[in-house]
Amino acid sequence: MRLRNKPWAKEMIENHPQYIVANPENYKGQWHEVFQNKQPLHIEVGTGKGRFVTEMAKAHPDINYIGIELYDSVIVAALDRLIEADLPNLRLLNVNASELNKYFEKNDVDRVYLNFSDPWPKTRHEKRRLTYKDFLKLYENILVDKGEIHFKTDNQGLFEYSLKSFSEYGLLLTFLSLDLHKSDYEGNIMTEYEQKFSEAGNRIYRCEVKYQN
Amino acid sequence: MRLRNKPWAKEMIENHPQYIVANPENYKGQWHEVFQNKQPLHIEVGTGKGRFVTEMAKAHPDINYIGIELYDSVIVAALDRLIEADLPNLRLLNVNASELNKYFEKNDVDRVYLNFSDPWPKTRHEKRRLTYKDFLKLYENILVDKGEIHFKTDNQGLFEYSLKSFSEYGLLLTFLSLDLHKSDYEGNIMTEYEQKFSEAGNRIYRCEVKYQN
Repeated sequence: MRLRNKPWAKEMIENHPQYIVANPENYKGQWHEVFQNKQPLHIEVGTGKGRFVTEMAKAHPDINYIGIELYDSVIVAALDRLIEADLPNLRLLNVNASELNKYFEKNDVDRVYLNFSDPWPKTRHEKRRLTYKDFLKLYENILVDKGEIHFKTDNQGLFEYSLKSFSEYGLLLTFLSLDLHKSDYEGNIMTEYEQKFSEAGNRIYRCEVKYQN
Repeated sequence: MRLRNKPWAKEMIENHPQYIVANPENYKGQWHEVFQNKQPLHIEVGTGKGRFVTEMAKAHPDINYIGIELYDSVIVAALDRLIEADLPNLRLLNVNASELNKYFEKNDVDRVYLNFSDPWPKTRHEKRRLTYKDFLKLYENILVDKGEIHFKTDNQGLFEYSLKSFSEYGLLLTFLSLDLHKSDYEGNIMTEYEQKFSEAGNRIYRCEVKYQN
């Protein structure tokens, strides 16, 4: 997405530590203290403007959600949504996905969502794709055993790459739709990007994979 | 495909044992005797009218091919092609795919092609799909170690099912195209069905998977 410079973003983030967790490294292994319950924790890596994670948190009050977004100027849009919705089961983290292991430890997370991740189409940028093997290792190190990744994208090349990467890593493919909006899948919550893109008549690809240990 | 009754088909098949191998069970473990060389053997399960396997055999004289087709009335079209082309590296078998282990043993086959297999869309017919786990076991029992399956279809449901079935069986996904005719894949040989279908503007899905032992 296009990034606009928003000089006030950092201050807005710092002023809302109850929504965008300050010092998240303090909660590694003890996220239940933040939520004050022991519900399962699902995280969205690259949460963007936050529509998906906010609507999921509304629809599933028995699950805790954390939306992770690196860019100040983007996460403030998610913050606006969260301030309005004021959901007890949703928090945001303004951190880099490549440092997830600073904030989470093994068994902290039950499911990872990846939605419309940056495709990084050039081969020399493969390592930046959120489905590259190093990221799959990172997720494994914070997920429960048999933890899941749920992934959707409109980008055919990224989806092809990701299915091969999942296979090579030994992940089990448990759900696959090659045209999500024409399938009988229920409960899909669209991201901002997904709505815009699919209105143009294009396909959404979606899969679920599971770690085998 | 639509089957026409062709009462003369059986006689035509029996009259051409040099092309449609008679008593194929006699060659189990010794197919090199039929071809009189030790080239790799690739088989197409469900060869239909034989365009794919014939063109592959022309393009790759260093590989032996066997096209397998159950229906008399269909295999005679492949036989016509083979009589005309008279290729030393191609034979046909008029047998049922579910009995492959009668005619081949472990290490006889280097690669299995599945092209536009019957999708059997009803759940109760799952066991008939050529990518059902029992068929994957059957192929494993006649393939070399690290043997491959190359699969293409226009049927989205069958392709989704098959990728999940391959994953569950522990096969490694090494190639994937979700829109073959718009990809940079080279050397594609179209089946009769594929040409007709893709001219209507529809997608072809293709993958390659490999047994891990």
